[in-house]
Amino acid sequence: MSFAPLRNDRLLRALRREPVDCTPVWLMRQAGRYLPEYKATRARAGSFMNLAKHPQLACEVTLQPLDRFPLDAAILFSDILTVPDAMGLGLSFAEGEGPQFAHPVRSAADVAKLGVPDMSSELRYVTDAVTLIRRELGGRVPLIGFSGSPWTLACYMVEGGGSERFARIKAMLHDDPATLHKLLEINARAVTAYLAAQIEAGAQAVMVFDTWGGVLTPRHFRDFSLRWMSQIAAELPRGSGADRVPLILFAKGVHQLEAIADTGCDAVGLDWTIDLSEARARIGHRVALQGNLDPVALYGNDAAVRAAVAEVLDSFGDGPGHVFNLGHGITPDVDPARAATLVQAVHELSAGRAMR
Amino acid sequence: MSFAPLRNDRLLRALRREPVDCTPVWLMRQAGRYLPEYKATRARAGSFMNLAKHPQLACEVTLQPLDRFPLDAAILFSDILTVPDAMGLGLSFAEGEGPQFAHPVRSAADVAKLGVPDMSSELRYVTDAVTLIRRELGGRVPLIGFSGSPWTLACYMVEGGGSERFARIKAMLHDDPATLHKLLEINARAVTAYLAAQIEAGAQAVMVFDTWGGVLTPRHFRDFSLRWMSQIAAELPRGSGADRVPLILFAKGVHQLEAIADTGCDAVGLDWTIDLSEARARIGHRVALQGNLDPVALYGNDAAVRAAVAEVLDSFGDGPGHVFNLGHGITPDVDPARAATLVQAVHELSAGRAMR
Repeated sequence: MSFAPLRNDRLLRALRREPVDCTPVWLMRQAGRYLPEYKATRARAGSFMNLAKHPQLACEVTLQPLDRFPLDAAILFSDILTVPDAMGLGLSFAEGEGPQFAHPVRSAADVAKLGVPDMSSELRYVTDAVTLIRRELGGRVPLIGFSGSPWTLACYMVEGGGSERFARIKAMLHDDPATLHKLLEINARAVTAYLAAQIEAGAQAVMVFDTWGGVLTPRHFRDFSLRWMSQIAAELPRGSGADRVPLILFAKGVHQLEAIADTGCDAVGLDWTIDLSEARARIGHRVALQGNLDPVALYGNDAAVRAAVAEVLDSFGDGPGHVFNLGHGITPDVDPARAATLVQAVHELSAGRAMR
Repeated sequence: MSFAPLRNDRLLRALRREPVDCTPVWLMRQAGRYLPEYKATRARAGSFMNLAKHPQLACEVTLQPLDRFPLDAAILFSDILTVPDAMGLGLSFAEGEGPQFAHPVRSAADVAKLGVPDMSSELRYVTDAVTLIRRELGGRVPLIGFSGSPWTLACYMVEGGGSERFARIKAMLHDDPATLHKLLEINARAVTAYLAAQIEAGAQAVMVFDTWGGVLTPRHFRDFSLRWMSQIAAELPRGSGADRVPLILFAKGVHQLEAIADTGCDAVGLDWTIDLSEARARIGHRVALQGNLDPVALYGNDAAVRAAVAEVLDSFGDGPGHVFNLGHGITPDVDPARAATLVQAVHELSAGRAMR
């Protein structure tokens, strides 16, 4: 496919640890409920899944934050649970509730029924959205595709939805690890195919969200989450040189940075519980770092937001390889004016730094 | 006060990093809803606060787990929010809900109204319970007293109850840190007086729970939580030599172990997201370590529980200074038989180790 040439390549340069004029910034959940225009489109769509499954609507909400703020990247509007939904688990979102699967995976027999979905049919709506967004972006900023990690998808598939303690999947982990690994292996192949299809359709960077890696012990994280993300990093076709599609891994609440950096990913996403300075000291310049302002800092006033941005930039220090982001998704009740302050502060305060 | 001599001093010896015949074990929330006898007493009490506020009932539930399992410590049955309740915030527990304060602390004017409660009147029910339990224990095992940390108490006081994102207290932290520090300073003095009163009444070890330290950035943890726990460690009268009352600090989800160990506490509690081997490598033998089995391991079968216990013991390795515990409270739906398996496994599997 052929698209307009990219006019703002700060994100891709930072992910390749190349010099930039100022630090690129985007926000997890930047297309979301804190924006009134998002809520209007969401209301028109009727349901969250209708919004995600119609490329025209997904494209519309993906572009909304870019029309408000000079962000340096767009991220596909979708949900991490599209893949298990396409496996036939029956995803729904009750109003005001989290995700629910009609057919959770509880046994070896349930796992045996699962397979990698066909990207060109069950998940066609995602790749169509990617291509449409990429076209509509017209080269303004790069487009990021994404997926949930094999472990995080398995958490929802086994628990049947959100969970406080992850009792079902942890019981499976302790009592029947072979079945859990079978499920994770299917998920890893599905995620690899899914990200490859997004890249094929036009995604210029991809990110894997391991939202629930942090509920595991260090050893279980390595065995049941990281191992399968490493397989994705090894097997996902990402091109090379200036055309290489960078892979960002984000394992929320996980402090095993060295092990994550060793997967072969291009960047490590960090939540706000680790200082960027410590992360750089521990993993050096092998990979870029993405993060890590506490989203709740956006509840402060403008001066406090600027001070908090400055602190994150100072912690990273000089040199290339930083993508500014929040440490978790922007929250629904944030004033969009604070997000504007954040984006402006990142660009202004980083422009004077030595990043060349 | 004079009590029967202590017959099982494994806990106190381990907290002093002295040799023991086997690793002592107790469980956070060991007196709790997973025990049918607890539920029966709770039903008789009518409400959670009635249970906590009547020394006879608090004593009864404190002793229940000791009659079932050969635990090496009793822990006062109470709640971390007794102190703000005694400050006049009006604590209640709606059925099936978390704690609620009728009068949350939202402004400098609210903070100005607060003071350290009088331990001999408003919190007399707690010290009476401590003395009664200590007497009823008759020297079987030592009794642990406890409190919430200044920061964790402030979280509930400002939010008015539990919280998902801690938006109100974090906004105060960013916009008006002086008011928040004033609140934390009052809390620190109150916690110090509260723990001193528990020690005076018979507590043989004390523990501070910083349940919400992990929601802060590393710097904010040091400034708004650790600083005030350090003050408690410095000012709490704990005696000396064999009569010294050890202080355990537990900051859930916080990985700044060196800084916690440097407060002057005697032991550091750990959740399951850090290996004991890493913790020992990082903080050496300055303090004892308490933890750190994932409570969800108790959903596995008996063989899985024993294997999980062995893994924690192996991770700590040889030498004194380990108190076995869960990394968080035991969950309400655990089969008590699994807790029995855990306690037996800790004693059996550690007895052969070189801890002298």
